Amino acid sequence: MTRSRPEITAEVTEGVCRLLHHHNMACITELRLGNGRRLDILALGLKGELWAVEVKSSVEDFRVDAKWQTYRDYCDRFFFAVPMEFPRDLIPEEEGLIVADRFEAAIVRPAEDFKLNAARRKKLLIDFGRLAAGRLRGDVKMDMLIS
Amino acid sequence: MTRSRPEITAEVTEGVCRLLHHHNMACITELRLGNGRRLDILALGLKGELWAVEVKSSVEDFRVDAKWQTYRDYCDRFFFAVPMEFPRDLIPEEEGLIVADRFEAAIVRPAEDFKLNAARRKKLLIDFGRLAAGRLRGDVKMDMLIS
Repeated sequence: MTRSRPEITAEVTEGVCRLLHHHNMACITELRLGNGRRLDILALGLKGELWAVEVKSSVEDFRVDAKWQTYRDYCDRFFFAVPMEFPRDLIPEEEGLIVADRFEAAIVRPAEDFKLNAARRKKLLIDFGRLAAGRLRGDVKMDMLIS
Repeated sequence: MTRSRPEITAEVTEGVCRLLHHHNMACITELRLGNGRRLDILALGLKGELWAVEVKSSVEDFRVDAKWQTYRDYCDRFFFAVPMEFPRDLIPEEEGLIVADRFEAAIVRPAEDFKLNAARRKKLLIDFGRLAAGRLRGDVKMDMLIS
């Protein structure tokens, strides 16, 4: 049975969050960014490191996205995450790559560490905390942009 | 009908969170702190300011707490929050005071601004975000101490 694109995205997202949890990182999913884009996963580590993961459910999904580099304003490391059947050669070699299904995931190529500057990291940490806490309370107003 | 202490605490907590929401602060409730204490509310503002609120449901509840000053390691501002019927004169004059029921709350005395240092604030922002995100995913392991 063919799965829909949202189903594949949800499964890959779940697998990636499990993986990141093993890396002791806390994930928020489906974020709206201040630059007008959406991001599938932003994860926060013990030392304040931020990893962004963008899920590509299909080749077409990947091809329509020409501006993924803008995610670098939001993270120290950026990864694409794709399902098992995705042709991995399509993903640019300079980007991190995670392959996942809903049960598990693996980092098949590490991501470069760009290192956010301190002021930018502080802003993102504030936004991350406020967004997660707002969602916890079911607070739509607080389900804001990550600036 | 007499309400139980946990009921009063829950009502005051709800009122305080509504108030803080009007101040555009995002709240997490019932936190465990690294110093072994618990804290009822920690709220995070747009600029990274952290306000801690400790609910005292009754005079006895207040009297058994001789060490509230230790909360200052976790916030820029510290408030006690009490129900309407609580004798407000008991609360030390140098501490902020919020009076609340479950529907509304008011800051009847502002709190001094201690200003956390930058390194401490960063650590708390990280912990706040990880705790909220962990709870969002129902992740017990991530329901950790605020260090």
